[in-house]
Amino acid sequence: MHKGRLEAFSDGVIAIIITIMVLEMKVPHGGDLTALRPLLPVFCSYVLSFIYVGIYWSNHHHLFQAVKHVNGAVLWANLHLLFWLSLFPFVSGLMGENHVTTLAVVLYGVVLILTAVAYFILCRVLLAGHASDSALAKAIGSDFKGKVSLVIYAVGIALAFVGVWLGIALYVLVAIMWLVPDRRIEKALAS
Amino acid sequence: MHKGRLEAFSDGVIAIIITIMVLEMKVPHGGDLTALRPLLPVFCSYVLSFIYVGIYWSNHHHLFQAVKHVNGAVLWANLHLLFWLSLFPFVSGLMGENHVTTLAVVLYGVVLILTAVAYFILCRVLLAGHASDSALAKAIGSDFKGKVSLVIYAVGIALAFVGVWLGIALYVLVAIMWLVPDRRIEKALAS
Amino acid sequence: MHKGRLEAFSDGVIAIIITIMVLEMKVPHGGDLTALRPLLPVFCSYVLSFIYVGIYWSNHHHLFQAVKHVNGAVLWANLHLLFWLSLFPFVSGLMGENHVTTLAVVLYGVVLILTAVAYFILCRVLLAGHASDSALAKAIGSDFKGKVSLVIYAVGIALAFVGVWLGIALYVLVAIMWLVPDRRIEKALAS
Amino acid sequence: MHKGRLEAFSDGVIAIIITIMVLEMKVPHGGDLTALRPLLPVFCSYVLSFIYVGIYWSNHHHLFQAVKHVNGAVLWANLHLLFWLSLFPFVSGLMGENHVTTLAVVLYGVVLILTAVAYFILCRVLLAGHASDSALAKAIGSDFKGKVSLVIYAVGIALAFVGVWLGIALYVLVAIMWLVPDRRIEKALAS
Repeated sequence: MHKGRLEAFSDGVIAIIITIMVLEMKVPHGGDLTALRPLLPVFCSYVLSFIYVGIYWSNHHHLFQAVKHVNGAVLWANLHLLFWLSLFPFVSGLMGENHVTTLAVVLYGVVLILTAVAYFILCRVLLAGHASDSALAKAIGSDFKGKVSLVIYAVGIALAFVGVWLGIALYVLVAIMWLVPDRRIEKALAS
Repeated sequence: MHKGRLEAFSDGVIAIIITIMVLEMKVPHGGDLTALRPLLPVFCSYVLSFIYVGIYWSNHHHLFQAVKHVNGAVLWANLHLLFWLSLFPFVSGLMGENHVTTLAVVLYGVVLILTAVAYFILCRVLLAGHASDSALAKAIGSDFKGKVSLVIYAVGIALAFVGVWLGIALYVLVAIMWLVPDRRIEKALAS
Repeated sequence: MHKGRLEAFSDGVIAIIITIMVLEMKVPHGGDLTALRPLLPVFCSYVLSFIYVGIYWSNHHHLFQAVKHVNGAVLWANLHLLFWLSLFPFVSGLMGENHVTTLAVVLYGVVLILTAVAYFILCRVLLAGHASDSALAKAIGSDFKGKVSLVIYAVGIALAFVGVWLGIALYVLVAIMWLVPDRRIEKALAS
Repeated sequence: MHKGRLEAFSDGVIAIIITIMVLEMKVPHGGDLTALRPLLPVFCSYVLSFIYVGIYWSNHHHLFQAVKHVNGAVLWANLHLLFWLSLFPFVSGLMGENHVTTLAVVLYGVVLILTAVAYFILCRVLLAGHASDSALAKAIGSDFKGKVSLVIYAVGIALAFVGVWLGIALYVLVAIMWLVPDRRIEKALAS
């Protein structure tokens, strides 16, 4: 089974997810500064979510470059990943509400964790169909960064009950960790 | 006529359908648990619809892998399938309303049936342009699962008048039937 | 310049247009028949618009199969066509309002005419870059059906001032004319 | 790393951006002229934004035709460009409000500038990975038009404080400058 259509379909879904998030920024009636102020948290939330979805697209892109063949299990593991990604517009909108609630930050973290777990499952399902010395196995490696991310998300959720900004700060930290080019950060974290 | 653009267009439409369904989960003002509770049925309905659209994409993918050439009739049989799929966001939103009505469950079932019929027609139109011993004919086979699904949908619609949850249970059953890998379930159903 | 990306971009835009039209069918609160009745004209309008956008996608598909190369002028003639197509969700929603107004039917017809003109311009721009005995020139031919459509649209707009259903009937007629396989209808019209 | 998926993903995102802008034209209840009049500025704003997004897609298309290979930095420079493009539906809706405010015109100009800067960065990142005598380097050239655009945008923002229409006029001027075929306008501007 060719991977072309799976890539094209994933590109389509991720492209839509990353774009419809902007619809949460409802155009206000009356375009003065007072009317726009409530949109500032929505905008910040949008930026963070855009970066996260961008990270997943970029990682998905890298991952599938090393993939040789796909099967039914890969199709569904991929759809499972897309499902959790598709909840980003919702939790992003929720966290962008003017008065940030603990629940919104916790839910955002839960979606972050479940998306990361779905990505982890996708990697396992792909590895099951490839040799242990394949380019794919090397590309995935020990997935140190992925495991560290899961821990930070969990800590972020716990800290959100102390203060919402602590939770958000940890989510931002993980995003930065993935944005900075790979080798250096991995060395820094492993040392 | 090449099948590439038909696949790409279908991927695009299905990707949008599966993603805009999440827009039915309107972000509430005030992100506490009370505000989120009405979204639970919408979320469950979204999960079921996501799985159904995913099943159709997966089957469409498998089907067209065996297809050699397409013509104008295939184009329109495919658009006909996409039309019924495009109603999923609507019936999914309707069934996700807080107080599930009989009508919503019946309409959901009607769209399920008409989508299945459209898929059946697409298969017939494709078969008409291929030899009876082609890879396509083998891939479609007797389409036992498709026929059983139609019967269960119809029973589900009838049972929805007795109780909405009976209808929904049968729709969930069909989804599970398609999610479980093919051979085993076919054997189980055929025995 | 390759035509691949132009086709992919057009597929994307048309896929989105054909799908977001369904968003005009707002999910009502309370899913009984009384709540759904106002959606019937929206649904009918959606069916007609879906068929029209489908016709344009199908024709676009056929047209570009015969195209060898594209240039900047083709890119913009194509974007011009996509612009008018992108107004279908708006005029479709307008005509689907419960009490159909003359203005809505007239605007729908105006968009039909301008889309047809844009398609005509796209054909001319493409022909300018191809030999007069090319496959493209043969595929476009005298474009008899396109010219007849323009006349019927214009008559439909005029008749809409007499009665809205007369206008709509003519728009439906053109859609049927394009749906019925080519040769027979062309013979029928030419005789 | 192949450029195919980057192009496909960009096509998807730009296709969605250019299409969802039309959703800002909300279908009014009651389809008479009085109900439609408030939509006129939204429509004009949509036309301008459609042309701008079209120009970026067209330039993106030309740019990547000359690109041989992409890397992680290109991926993110491209996502950065898509981010600013994704704000067009918002600022377009804002400027389309019935009573055009200075703030709306200024914000539109700011997004225009930041999108242009993102495009400039993308070009630099691409050039860093290609030889100085490559087809890409020649295709980008001195980017005279890009630099002039930045200046006009800035003047437009400043003039918006004097009168909103002065600002809008300059934004329209830049759009026309890009629409008119390249060589002639470059000569005219350089003379």
